[in-house]
Amino acid sequence: MQGEIEKAIEAVTQEAVGVVGSGRTDAGAHAYGQVIAFSTRSMLPAEVLCRAMNARLPEDIAVTSAEDIALDFHPRYDATSRVYRYLIWNRTIRSPFWLGRAAHVRPRLDERIMDQAARRLCGHRDFSAFVPATIEGSRRRTMYRAECRREGDLVIVELEANGFMKQMVRAIVGTLIQLGLGKIDLSEYLTILASGDRTLSGATAAAAGLYLVRVNYDESLVSSR
Amino acid sequence: MQGEIEKAIEAVTQEAVGVVGSGRTDAGAHAYGQVIAFSTRSMLPAEVLCRAMNARLPEDIAVTSAEDIALDFHPRYDATSRVYRYLIWNRTIRSPFWLGRAAHVRPRLDERIMDQAARRLCGHRDFSAFVPATIEGSRRRTMYRAECRREGDLVIVELEANGFMKQMVRAIVGTLIQLGLGKIDLSEYLTILASGDRTLSGATAAAAGLYLVRVNYDESLVSSR
Repeated sequence: MQGEIEKAIEAVTQEAVGVVGSGRTDAGAHAYGQVIAFSTRSMLPAEVLCRAMNARLPEDIAVTSAEDIALDFHPRYDATSRVYRYLIWNRTIRSPFWLGRAAHVRPRLDERIMDQAARRLCGHRDFSAFVPATIEGSRRRTMYRAECRREGDLVIVELEANGFMKQMVRAIVGTLIQLGLGKIDLSEYLTILASGDRTLSGATAAAAGLYLVRVNYDESLVSSR
Repeated sequence: MQGEIEKAIEAVTQEAVGVVGSGRTDAGAHAYGQVIAFSTRSMLPAEVLCRAMNARLPEDIAVTSAEDIALDFHPRYDATSRVYRYLIWNRTIRSPFWLGRAAHVRPRLDERIMDQAARRLCGHRDFSAFVPATIEGSRRRTMYRAECRREGDLVIVELEANGFMKQMVRAIVGTLIQLGLGKIDLSEYLTILASGDRTLSGATAAAAGLYLVRVNYDESLVSSR
């Protein structure tokens, strides 16, 4: 995706451009609210650049808005929080509509217990139980919001934190699914969370269900979003 | 799609099977609530047949339920009504998510005037204004329900009638879009409707937005749906 975006910018601005994003997204996941930044000598207004880029980008990539920003803005390091959404198609029969856009879990999930468990993730804590052992540095992050709800046959998990590590959302969702299926109970879940042991938590949920919904910044950095 | 379904049934029942559907769907449209019937000597319970078919069908086709039915049941001729839904992504910026699943109309649509106009389609009337001149036989149908609403950036048209002719929904939607864009007003719309002249109504809307949602039958014919 980054390559396609750089190509589109270069076609519009006629200069070589390197794009910086707010963070990587897993292959097969959906970078809905991705934020990118780049430097250009082009004098085109951001709004015009946005339209020109969309005209050149493949149909499955869209720039939803653009604005001028301080040269030292960094979409990754300046982010105050990220919001991820995870969609689970929860019906025995698969859905051609949600194919590639949601994970499929056939047995009925108990979204209420999943919601209770999700809420226990909030606060500043060590998320080692949900990240690969190979991750370096601190695994402490602050989870601002974590919830789970059902909308018909869709079960939706939403997480907002100041940072997410590799596969962290998908490991959390995989563990919540174990809980929703009754394979573990809430006290086992809390034990896993406290253990910091990735081998105890659930399998990494499919990338197809994962959406980066939004990246938040201080209002002083970005104007209108 | 019919070929894939016949292949799946034949793999399960080990007999040559011809499938009858409730009607054709345009290429690129979504046959969500399609109903099909076939005869088999297989003694497999319908529920088992359903699961076995799903195991063999490609991921973008799913059988949502199956039941035994009288030998003379015909999914097309016994249908009392069909429900179509049409989805329009109505935002300047295209949506990668709705790509192939909704039509894209950039300027803001007035869904209230579209809803008023849709409701005027109800009743037993001649729909010649919305079908190709080459259609033979009566163009009279009974529209039971016709409405339009907005859900965020989606504008949704829903039509229920005792029968639909080729491209009828897409021509109606194309005309409602003209209205929603202010290119025609309600009285011009009513004139087009009364004229029976397909050259006056709007362009055929894209197939990607069209969903056959449900086919209805007398309760005496089908049990549980």
